[in-house]
Amino acid sequence: MAGPCSVESEKQLLRTAEAVKAAGATFLRGGAFKPRTSPYEFQGLGEKGLKLLDKARRATGLAVITELLSENHADLVAEYTDIIQIGARNSQNFQLLIAAAKTGKPVLLKRGLSMRIEEWLLAGEYVLANENPNLLFCERGIRTFETYTRNTLDLSTIPIIKRETHCPIVIDPSQGAGRADLVSAMCKGAVAMGADALLIEVHPNPAEAWSDGAQQLSLDMFANLMKELKPFIAAAGRV
Amino acid sequence: MAGPCSVESEKQLLRTAEAVKAAGATFLRGGAFKPRTSPYEFQGLGEKGLKLLDKARRATGLAVITELLSENHADLVAEYTDIIQIGARNSQNFQLLIAAAKTGKPVLLKRGLSMRIEEWLLAGEYVLANENPNLLFCERGIRTFETYTRNTLDLSTIPIIKRETHCPIVIDPSQGAGRADLVSAMCKGAVAMGADALLIEVHPNPAEAWSDGAQQLSLDMFANLMKELKPFIAAAGRV
Amino acid sequence: MAGPCSVESEKQLLRTAEAVKAAGATFLRGGAFKPRTSPYEFQGLGEKGLKLLDKARRATGLAVITELLSENHADLVAEYTDIIQIGARNSQNFQLLIAAAKTGKPVLLKRGLSMRIEEWLLAGEYVLANENPNLLFCERGIRTFETYTRNTLDLSTIPIIKRETHCPIVIDPSQGAGRADLVSAMCKGAVAMGADALLIEVHPNPAEAWSDGAQQLSLDMFANLMKELKPFIAAAGRV
Amino acid sequence: MAGPCSVESEKQLLRTAEAVKAAGATFLRGGAFKPRTSPYEFQGLGEKGLKLLDKARRATGLAVITELLSENHADLVAEYTDIIQIGARNSQNFQLLIAAAKTGKPVLLKRGLSMRIEEWLLAGEYVLANENPNLLFCERGIRTFETYTRNTLDLSTIPIIKRETHCPIVIDPSQGAGRADLVSAMCKGAVAMGADALLIEVHPNPAEAWSDGAQQLSLDMFANLMKELKPFIAAAGRV
Repeated sequence: MAGPCSVESEKQLLRTAEAVKAAGATFLRGGAFKPRTSPYEFQGLGEKGLKLLDKARRATGLAVITELLSENHADLVAEYTDIIQIGARNSQNFQLLIAAAKTGKPVLLKRGLSMRIEEWLLAGEYVLANENPNLLFCERGIRTFETYTRNTLDLSTIPIIKRETHCPIVIDPSQGAGRADLVSAMCKGAVAMGADALLIEVHPNPAEAWSDGAQQLSLDMFANLMKELKPFIAAAGRV
Repeated sequence: MAGPCSVESEKQLLRTAEAVKAAGATFLRGGAFKPRTSPYEFQGLGEKGLKLLDKARRATGLAVITELLSENHADLVAEYTDIIQIGARNSQNFQLLIAAAKTGKPVLLKRGLSMRIEEWLLAGEYVLANENPNLLFCERGIRTFETYTRNTLDLSTIPIIKRETHCPIVIDPSQGAGRADLVSAMCKGAVAMGADALLIEVHPNPAEAWSDGAQQLSLDMFANLMKELKPFIAAAGRV
Repeated sequence: MAGPCSVESEKQLLRTAEAVKAAGATFLRGGAFKPRTSPYEFQGLGEKGLKLLDKARRATGLAVITELLSENHADLVAEYTDIIQIGARNSQNFQLLIAAAKTGKPVLLKRGLSMRIEEWLLAGEYVLANENPNLLFCERGIRTFETYTRNTLDLSTIPIIKRETHCPIVIDPSQGAGRADLVSAMCKGAVAMGADALLIEVHPNPAEAWSDGAQQLSLDMFANLMKELKPFIAAAGRV
Repeated sequence: MAGPCSVESEKQLLRTAEAVKAAGATFLRGGAFKPRTSPYEFQGLGEKGLKLLDKARRATGLAVITELLSENHADLVAEYTDIIQIGARNSQNFQLLIAAAKTGKPVLLKRGLSMRIEEWLLAGEYVLANENPNLLFCERGIRTFETYTRNTLDLSTIPIIKRETHCPIVIDPSQGAGRADLVSAMCKGAVAMGADALLIEVHPNPAEAWSDGAQQLSLDMFANLMKELKPFIAAAGRV
């Protein structure tokens, strides 16, 4: 799963979608509604962003994953997306989890910044208990005292989620490390440990991204990464 | 501000309201909508709980503070409460903050479990930027590695919030420590450091509480606490 | 207990000692052996620093507390000090704790940066089990994700140490907050919660201190603090 | 690098040494001096343990790594070991680092429980600055709020240490996870990410180990692990 942090424009999105498709991605990610720490930062293109994702979907055949921020947007977002993402800051926003579950679409639940694994599993129960069996867990790093990386990516979640649930585990190394130069190593580790998917931020021009530029890969970096991962995918028996 | 973790029944709530009023409280707290880690735990009485809070308000003259969990309940909750509480798990649920702000009621924003103070200030901006100047910050403990207490109550927030904002700072020692036997000492410290209010869980029979029994004070413990605090309130020049 | 982070010169130390004595301190603190994160930072004056502390002790009648860094210096440090301090970074350096205990001098054990309270109590047992009953616990802040303060001062340790041990609990707000402007509020809280002593960094000219200038009080600030604390000491019944 | 948490007996050590050698290990690990949270726990066999390590070394040809706890034992430990280990609790015990460096033996420096990477690099400078260029960094998990695992193994240290230093990076999944059932996945991830060595606890009968039984692999589990790792070692180009 790959794509820009934020959907910015048709050109940016389509160019990214075509490139990640060519490199082997099967899902296009992109934020239309963005949860930003400050109300004065770019909040996403909203419905216009959803329509651009839909356009890219039709153009490339990629499936789409995007984030849901408000209970009131559940039907709208479900209309345009194949997987609904619940972000780390809303990981215990139980009303939002219920609203997402009720759309019937698969729900990808990111781990909260200081969420214990037990709490994550129980938050997932808010989806399962609302008759939606299509739940994916996504590790995106936890908050620690470390300042060298943005978060500390906890790869032990891979064997643990596999042991405790029937659900896929997705790894987001972009948020996890917060640094593009660490993404490649993180992906290799995740694949070797049995991750079912990777969620990677890719942008045609990371230096000019409207959000989180430091952690997005360029199109070339992504294509290289997909090549580098091949022997590890084979070693993990996931060809 | 004092009252039970959850509103359970008319008898429980009225008895608590009368007792905390007699001991000197000015606000009644009580959860009608409860954010629970598991969907299989008691989720609160909902609207029925709000009506009981209203009844206790009329009976005692206490003002009421209660938590808002869903954007869709903002008007309903605003109808029955004097302050809207945003809980720790929703501290970066920005849509909920906006919905709360737009009711025009004062908003008490609890600090998230792993929220940096800078992020807390910026989350507060989602209230202020929506033309609601009545914002209160509430420290309720952060998540650390410590297991002896439920959370680590960070009292340094008192001088910091006073330095950085015009808003009151409220301390919640019940959530902060998670142990009734530590509440008294925590309150003394908070008062001495300049806290503007305390938010304390009180229950007629903590051992039988439907949620968080271990951290709730009995009615007698609360009355004693209010007496013990007097010299510290005087020392802090807050008589 | 008050004094500079590092002993720098006879003039600096004597001037500080006289000022803190006049303001009401009973112990002079000062580092002769300094544990520095980098080997290229100032490592303390060593034995020369101890001799200066001794000189200040004789000149003012203040008792002395200073840190022990090496098992091989235990007898040397014990010769010049009234309390041996074990720093946070050595809080589980059990050989050092044993060496300190065996000198027969009281031992002040700082809490490690990520030490659980249970581990702190057990580290203290390394002193008690070596036939030295004079153990003091000192809270100096734990490491969390917060970046606004240097550490998070955990004042809940005051009631907990009192409940679990017979030992005094000392609070170090200078290390705990890492900011001089927060020291006063922290001290008030600590006194109100029952702390048995305060360990405060004071320097004649904090801006020119050889280490940790940002958290040291000036002589005037310290004198003011001692006045401000009086009503809280009275409220806590510790006159 | 593999072997028991503690050296317990000649039989236990030799049996382990032969088995890990047969499975492909090149270093035997084993604690002779053990840093235990409580003074009332088993503290290691001391010099007797060192002699058993030496015996196992001669019998199998494996090199030996063991922990140094006291400056006063530096020469003694150096006599019997090929690499001196500095444990997490002593990671900022700078006097011990200097004493270890001065023996001239390679020094493996474990990361402290709440050590920032920058501090770890600087602690390593205490070895390098004492004219010992043979420094190895060992990640063994950091302390977080998570309770499902003993620590959170931070595999991002692998690419970071490689980028910032010329030193090898060793991963200790046994301490990192604290659970034998997670060791295999952790090792695969570490190898894929470029770790230079693994440090694994192995015991003939983990259930009866004198320390940390829950995280030690049996001899069979270790042999299986070594087989499972082969395709990942090949994928990482480390045949």
